[in-house]
This record gives sequence, structure tokens and C-alpha cells, in this order.
Amino acid sequence: MIYFDTAASYPVLPEVKVAIAEAFNSSYANSSSSHKLGEEVALSVDKVRGQLAGEIGAYPSEIVFTSGATESNNIAFKSLLPNLSSSDSKHIVTTEIEHKCIFSICNYLESIGYKISYVKPDKSGVINTDAIEKALTPETVLVSVMHVNNELGTINPIGDIGRLCNEKDVLFHSDGAQSFMKVDIDVDELNVDVMSFSAHKIGGPKGIGAVYIRDLRNRELTPVIHGAGQENGVRGGTVASPLISGFSSAIKNFPRYYEDFKKTKASEFLLAELDRCRVEYKRNGSNFSLSSCLSLTLFSTNVAQLIRENENLFCLAQGSACSSKEIEASHVLTAISLSREEAEKTLRISFPLDITKENITELVEVVRRY
Amino acid sequence: MIYFDTAASYPVLPEVKVAIAEAFNSSYANSSSSHKLGEEVALSVDKVRGQLAGEIGAYPSEIVFTSGATESNNIAFKSLLPNLSSSDSKHIVTTEIEHKCIFSICNYLESIGYKISYVKPDKSGVINTDAIEKALTPETVLVSVMHVNNELGTINPIGDIGRLCNEKDVLFHSDGAQSFMKVDIDVDELNVDVMSFSAHKIGGPKGIGAVYIRDLRNRELTPVIHGAGQENGVRGGTVASPLISGFSSAIKNFPRYYEDFKKTKASEFLLAELDRCRVEYKRNGSNFSLSSCLSLTLFSTNVAQLIRENENLFCLAQGSACSSKEIEASHVLTAISLSREEAEKTLRISFPLDITKENITELVEVVRRY
Repeated sequence: MIYFDTAASYPVLPEVKVAIAEAFNSSYANSSSSHKLGEEVALSVDKVRGQLAGEIGAYPSEIVFTSGATESNNIAFKSLLPNLSSSDSKHIVTTEIEHKCIFSICNYLESIGYKISYVKPDKSGVINTDAIEKALTPETVLVSVMHVNNELGTINPIGDIGRLCNEKDVLFHSDGAQSFMKVDIDVDELNVDVMSFSAHKIGGPKGIGAVYIRDLRNRELTPVIHGAGQENGVRGGTVASPLISGFSSAIKNFPRYYEDFKKTKASEFLLAELDRCRVEYKRNGSNFSLSSCLSLTLFSTNVAQLIRENENLFCLAQGSACSSKEIEASHVLTAISLSREEAEKTLRISFPLDITKENITELVEVVRRY
Repeated sequence: MIYFDTAASYPVLPEVKVAIAEAFNSSYANSSSSHKLGEEVALSVDKVRGQLAGEIGAYPSEIVFTSGATESNNIAFKSLLPNLSSSDSKHIVTTEIEHKCIFSICNYLESIGYKISYVKPDKSGVINTDAIEKALTPETVLVSVMHVNNELGTINPIGDIGRLCNEKDVLFHSDGAQSFMKVDIDVDELNVDVMSFSAHKIGGPKGIGAVYIRDLRNRELTPVIHGAGQENGVRGGTVASPLISGFSSAIKNFPRYYEDFKKTKASEFLLAELDRCRVEYKRNGSNFSLSSCLSLTLFSTNVAQLIRENENLFCLAQGSACSSKEIEASHVLTAISLSREEAEKTLRISFPLDITKENITELVEVVRRY
């Protein structure tokens, strides 16, 4: 079985497995406990806080561990907004291609009085700074634009958007779940105020992530999860220290795997193979997309049948992972003006880190038959 | 080092480590993905949902996986209340001995217009049904009483309190983090509407828990973490399936360890040893407390010095784990009328599962010297 995951996440790296197993043996104490083992665990958690901060050019005090990017996105909106917005500043600008959880958060915020503007991407799936600027109003209090899109792999110009927000004195959040450790991130260069991360998108365990909040100590926040003072009162719940050890190991080891993967030039090879086999396709997104993601509309292929009849060979899907149980065209493909029919003929591929040319040839040989 | 954890949680059980390692190898797909591996993971998660439901006499559809009991407690209050309370029904009854996160949640709810009554326990630390009944008003919309107290091990009569709430048509929540798998739980017999659980209190991993919500499918909830439809729209974020496998293994294996632990009669033996060594003490709580917890006020002992000077021998603490970084008397001890001085002389012990009589004798030999 070749696992072209549609959720753009990776199996846990071998080194991460070892790190978690070690943490289960040595770091099982509660990091809030005042005894020696508890303090050791608290120190080890703070070390990872520093490591993550270092990766993105932040201060350790600006990092909060969460259960993953979805929770981090919730914090970005629901923890920060109550203390930023007044009755006449309840406007949020986001985009049509965000992760579905952003829409869920925004629908909720609309129900309590916020107004939301959803900016369309250009045809290649990129959010342009001009489009964001046009959507801003004097009431805008938050702009949220994902760094890398999870279906297309497109990279948004968040540095420019961040500069714009900074000039206009509007808080800027970016969902970095797909970009972290794949694209350089420096929160100062990018002018990002809040950024979300997930460990399982870089070979870490599911159930752990983080949120960067600029100048956290001087902000007033309403926790999403109220707790007993953990994470400086921002996020409640016993700190999942063994998962944080796994996150740390993923940050350390993922780049090596990813560099090796990039050398395979999997996207380019797959496209060349499709050409060779005369399979009609269009690549959605742009040529500057992340090399690990590929969205292909196969005009003459029965994609549904291809996926179904080869489910023991390839893990593939049509829709976006998180909403795939509802049968509807992906909102990202709709945003770049694909028809429902075209969306149904679209294959979303994210390559496993250990993909080989043989795997890709095998896939294309199957595709040409449908 | 002997680990008398003060947070009443246990190191991960050996079987749990194996289960998580296996899940990392086989169940790494996203349970929301429509491909075969994703569906297999979704099925395995639902199996654990059924297992947990079976343990507490609930339906699988009434179980939502969360990051732990703190998040579950947040859901109990913040997800359910908005759709239950009107402007004239914003009264909540809880107790003075809850986990600190409940106070944090209640402080927030007070800030948005709720009124909270905190019921005092009796001298032994038990919440009496009469006291709850007296606190109820026609405006009461939620009662929340923990099942077992984490410092004293006292067991509250939540079956009686649940019946009262049922009669008065008030939603009843109980934090079951400390009681799950240690005390029999049947949500129907106990008349509980909402109950919170954590895996790491029964030898499972940190970072996973669950909430039981009676008749969940017919309720309208406002998610604490808005997501992309996971957990029937109640809790967003990629489902942490390997942690759920670990939770499952803990549910299966913990009872055996706990039965063996109970045979050691650790509490009784420790008290007998203190008597033998003529150490002056008072046991806080009641004789019906859970055998794994012990709160002892040692009148003639310098507890702070004892803990500090023996930190390489024993993991012990004075305060409640989650708030121990603030130096203040435990709120539970204050609630049962201990003075600050008595609280400072109080040792909170929760026994490791593999405690031996030799360990206990060793501890008492040290205690007598302070």
C-alpha cells in the first residue's frame, strides 16, 4: 500500500517514536508539580519551547503548546478578539481557501456579531496582497491568511500581507500548519502576530501543536480552554510533555527527511510520467507550489472509480481530508473556479517522504487505464 | 526515586506503550480521510468509543474525545450552557473542592453574566446532597460536582445529587477524572448528564481524554474548539488516534494493576507505620476515601524541609499539583477548614501502582526525623 495521504500529514518519524518512548519512561511527571521530577519535565518542555521559538525567530515566552493547529487557530480568533474588538471594530478579513476550521470559527463569530470578509484567491490559488487591502475597512480588527494551502501547496505572500496589516495596525494571523519546517518562517520578517502549528504535519505525533502569539505577556487573552494556570494561564490542561518531546524530535529530524524527499523531484517526475503516458491533466495551483503537494484535474480519467478500485494499492482521495465525509466539491477548488465536475476529476496528492520513482510510475500506469 | 505523585496520575502502563507504538506504525492515517487507511483508523477510534461507553453504561454516540479532562470540563460548561440558559436562568452550582480549572471556567462565566454558588464540603471533605439542594434556585441551569476529589480521595454521593438534579430538571455534570476505573460508574444509575475523563489518570498517555454527554445527538452545542466537523462537529482537530489506542489499552489493563495495588493496603500500612513511629498526624478526608490518595497533616513535622531535603528519594509535594507554582494553601484544605499553617504541614500522597511496604517504611523512617 502506497500512502499518498490527502491530509498532507506524515507517519510518525522513527526518531520521534524513540523520543516519545523515552519520555514515557522518564518524563511522566506532571510539569506543574513542584517536586523534582515535575520540575525536570517543566524544564524539558521549556527547552522545546525555546527550540520552536528559535525555528521561527520568536521568544520562548511567545509560544503556547496546544493540541494542534485547529486549537491554535481557535485561540488566534477566540482568545485574542474579545480584548481587541469594540462594538464598532468587529470586522475580520480571511480567505476562501483556509482550512475548514477557520470557516467554522468564523460562522460562530458571525453569530455573535462579527462581520467576515472572505477574499478570493487568484486563478492559481494565491491570495494577493491587493485583494486583502481592498477588503480592509476601518473596522477590521483581524486578518487571517494561511501560509501554505493544504490542497494546492500554494505559498501566500504573507510577508507582504503582514506588512500591510502592520501599517494599518490590524492583528495578523497565519495558519502555518502546512508551511512549518517546509518554508522558512521568521515571524518578524513575515510581520506575523499569531501563527498556528501542528506536530503531525512534520512527522510528529497527532494531538500536539503550538501557537505563536507576539508579545504574549502583554496581551489580555480569554482562554479557549480555561485551566489551572498552565501555559501562563493561556491554555489549560496537563501539559502533554511526552508529545512535546515527540514534537521536538520532529522539528530536529524532519528537515533531513524533507531534503531527501525534495531530491526525488516527485512532482516533476509525476507530471513527466503523465505526459509520457499522454494522460490529460491540469495542475491546480502554481509552479511555485510546495513540492510535497499536488492537485491534478484529470479531464479524461474516471477519478472516483480509479480511487475505489485501487484502494488496496494507493491511499488517494478526491476531497479535502477533513470534510471528505460530506460529498461536496472541495472549497479550495471551488475558490479557484473549478466546476463541480472538474473538482470530481481532481486528485489531491501529498507525497509520502519515502516515495520512489517506481511508486510514481506504478501510480501513473494505473491512472492511464481509467 | 520513589514517585508519590501529587497529581494522582500514573506513569504510562507497559501495555499502553506497546499499543501506542503499534498505532504509530499502523494507524497513522487521518481518521477523517475517505481512503481505506483513514476509514480503518476511524473504525478503530469508534471501537474505543464503544469500549469507553461500555465502561460507563453510555451509548458510543454520547462520547466525544478531547485532549483531557480539563477540556472536557470546559465543554461541560461552555459548550452546553449557551443553548440551555436564558437571561433569567444563569445560575450555576458547584463546590469549593473542584479541580482548579472549574474555578477558572466559572470566573470567566461570571464575567459574562452567570452567577455561581460554591457549596462547602462537610468536615471530611464530602459534598452533601442537602447542601446542593439548598444552593439550588429556580434560575439554576447547571450543577457540577466532582466524583472523587483529587487531594482527599473522598467520594461524593453523585448518584443522590444526580437524582436531585434530575427531579429539578437541572443539567448535572461530574468531573470523573479521579474516579474513572477506580469507582464503578454507570451514568444512568448516577443520573449524570455530562462527565469528564482523562487517560493519564489510569496509566494512559497525557493529551487525551473524553467527555460523556447524555443524548448528545439531540443537543445543540457551541464547540470549545471549532473544527472541520470531527467528533460530530462537537470537537475540532485531527483525531489523535494513536493516543486513543493508548487510552483503550489503559482502560483494558489498568484494573488489573489497580487490583494488585489495592491488595497492598498502602494507606492503612502507612498510617500504621506512622502510629508505630509515633508520628503525630491527622488524615484529611474520610475513611471511605479512595485507597490511592492520602492527605496527611503532620502536626510536629517540618514538611517543607522534609520534602526539600529528600527530593532525590521521594517525589512529594505540599500543594495541589496544578497550582503548586503559586505558593498558597490548597483550596481543598481551606474548604475543609484547615488553617494556612496546617495546610503547610500537609503532605499530599498518591501512591504509585507498584508501591511496596518497604517503600512506605522508608518514607516513614524519613518522616519521623523531621
